[in-house]
Amino acid sequence: MSVTAAQGFEAAGVAVGLKSTGAKDVAVVVNRGPRKVGAAVFTSNRAKANPIIWSEQAIADGVVEAVVLNSGGANCFTGSFGFQTTHQTAEKAAGLLGVSAGDVIVCSTGLIGSGDEVFRGKVLDGVEQGVAALSAAGGEDASLAIMTTDSRPKLAVVSRDGWTVGGMAKGAGMLAPGLATMLVVVTTDAEIEPAEADAALRRATRLTFDRLDSDGCMSTNDQVTLLASGASGLRPGLDDFALALTEVCQDLAQQLQADAEGASHDIVIQVVGAASEDDAVTVGRSVARNNLFKAAIFGNDPNWGRVLAAIGTTRAAFDPYDVDVSFNGVRVCTAGGPDRPREEVDLTPRRTEILIDLRVGAATATILTNDLTHDYVHENSAYSS
Amino acid sequence: MSVTAAQGFEAAGVAVGLKSTGAKDVAVVVNRGPRKVGAAVFTSNRAKANPIIWSEQAIADGVVEAVVLNSGGANCFTGSFGFQTTHQTAEKAAGLLGVSAGDVIVCSTGLIGSGDEVFRGKVLDGVEQGVAALSAAGGEDASLAIMTTDSRPKLAVVSRDGWTVGGMAKGAGMLAPGLATMLVVVTTDAEIEPAEADAALRRATRLTFDRLDSDGCMSTNDQVTLLASGASGLRPGLDDFALALTEVCQDLAQQLQADAEGASHDIVIQVVGAASEDDAVTVGRSVARNNLFKAAIFGNDPNWGRVLAAIGTTRAAFDPYDVDVSFNGVRVCTAGGPDRPREEVDLTPRRTEILIDLRVGAATATILTNDLTHDYVHENSAYSS
Repeated sequence: MSVTAAQGFEAAGVAVGLKSTGAKDVAVVVNRGPRKVGAAVFTSNRAKANPIIWSEQAIADGVVEAVVLNSGGANCFTGSFGFQTTHQTAEKAAGLLGVSAGDVIVCSTGLIGSGDEVFRGKVLDGVEQGVAALSAAGGEDASLAIMTTDSRPKLAVVSRDGWTVGGMAKGAGMLAPGLATMLVVVTTDAEIEPAEADAALRRATRLTFDRLDSDGCMSTNDQVTLLASGASGLRPGLDDFALALTEVCQDLAQQLQADAEGASHDIVIQVVGAASEDDAVTVGRSVARNNLFKAAIFGNDPNWGRVLAAIGTTRAAFDPYDVDVSFNGVRVCTAGGPDRPREEVDLTPRRTEILIDLRVGAATATILTNDLTHDYVHENSAYSS
Repeated sequence: MSVTAAQGFEAAGVAVGLKSTGAKDVAVVVNRGPRKVGAAVFTSNRAKANPIIWSEQAIADGVVEAVVLNSGGANCFTGSFGFQTTHQTAEKAAGLLGVSAGDVIVCSTGLIGSGDEVFRGKVLDGVEQGVAALSAAGGEDASLAIMTTDSRPKLAVVSRDGWTVGGMAKGAGMLAPGLATMLVVVTTDAEIEPAEADAALRRATRLTFDRLDSDGCMSTNDQVTLLASGASGLRPGLDDFALALTEVCQDLAQQLQADAEGASHDIVIQVVGAASEDDAVTVGRSVARNNLFKAAIFGNDPNWGRVLAAIGTTRAAFDPYDVDVSFNGVRVCTAGGPDRPREEVDLTPRRTEILIDLRVGAATATILTNDLTHDYVHENSAYSS
């Protein structure tokens, strides 16, 4: 399953002591070909971890042989020593696999500022053990090795006529937009060119991971990598491929939302009637990031005033006195004034649907977020990450 | 004290049942002259409450006779009925005081969407009782009547050679920028012209209330009103006056920060070495709004990685690998890498100082914020506001 569901891929997940629990913490995913096509999108945070700086260069030629991922340390803001660690990680994997280091992607996740000699030694050890353990059944082990505060691994597979897209993701906090917002590897045995892979990946992530905004905090380390082996010998149409890829990404994005740190509600904010898609995204995101709104949902309070107050901080085209807002199908606000009594809204289910009609156009967008809970505060105050 | 510290002012605070507790809930502040100069700044939220829409018009001529303020209802998103309520409130006060309704400012605070016939009746009753109770010793009562979730009234006075500036404020949540971020009335007996009052108020609020960003949530109702009676017969220099006004505003802003809902730390984020003041403000605000940073402070964790991750989301001029960050005087990050061990930082005091040196210029700015706590989530999930 996951990254080994498609033909042509091997993976492994091993434990080398980066996690104090003894759980798996280094994953390796290898493309056995025949094609070695790769594409990736990265966090748009300007504060970039060393693996991002490395991988942005490595992906430039559209060729990827392997991805090495570690949890238990972000290797971010660790100076030139940290960059050398990433470089050595790629070199080590390349040497063992007989490929070029420039075709090895590196991903790290964990505490920012951590990445000393001990860290380096463990990661290099993990590469050696991981390459030795590679198998066509290793997808699940790999998905376990990239978990940090995740409570469960995230896997998804979509199969079409003879070709497959499968992926794994990790992420439970720092989920916010910027193209990529977590560590994700997606593989396919479809036969596609590097430019097609890049285009399809950007299409898919724009509508999925980039619309997930759990806590408004953008990570320094996040990337989504797509590997294509061509092992199925089949060449799907670009639209068909992009749709399957989007389906896998959406599935993974929803799993990330469902596992967000401390959350008690998965909130789907659907904005309709917007003048443009950008406006719809801006409005949805502004509501998703409003702490008062998020705390109200935690308290099962359909506080539409906080929704309008959040929309009012944007530059989107709308008239505050001509906006409709529904909570779980009950329209509590019509034309910027009270409609149905808030008592009619049931916010006890985990899934919460907010529908905002800006009534100025035909554009729409959906943003996924979570509520602000005691447990979110607890998890992010009690532990460094 | 407070709004009646300066000569020429009377005030009152009365209870008319808008608050279920029976506490005072309507305040009236009247300028007895001889001058009736006024200036005001308003929330920049496009979702504006009826009192904001009214008062923006009323302030246009620079003449203000009186301010009527109520807690217990925001009169926001209450339709044309709500606007008529505000209009009738001004008319009622004007009739009783023998002035023009267009010279009466109205301010409301409380739950958005509330403002029915009962609300209107109580507010009008409060105007009648408030005008009857006006006194030169009424400043404290007025400051009590505007409280919502505030745990204490906020008062400040600065006296110079023969002239005085005094004020009151309310606000404990929804504290975020937009010129005004709460209800504030400041009075002075200095002799100043309307244009000078406006200029001084904008200078003062830009550096005080506008740099307070407790929870990133901008209110629909907030305004800061300045009234000048000229009763001292003294005409200070504009710089002297603006300085005294800034002092009062800063005092009130710090009181708002100290009383922020559920907060356990008052965080002062000082950004230095910025290329421009705008950059410094942008960086400070981005850190102030980062939930992971705020939760870390609650947990007494000097998590400088989260500071850099927040800075990285801005467009400010900086190099992520040449930034220094100190927590309470201990430099934990130098040139984008670890410096002193985090164990050296003591974050147990309520006052927390974050110093960020961007090392690209000479501009600075200071942003005031609070941490993200269990109590913040509790107060904003358990009660509608």
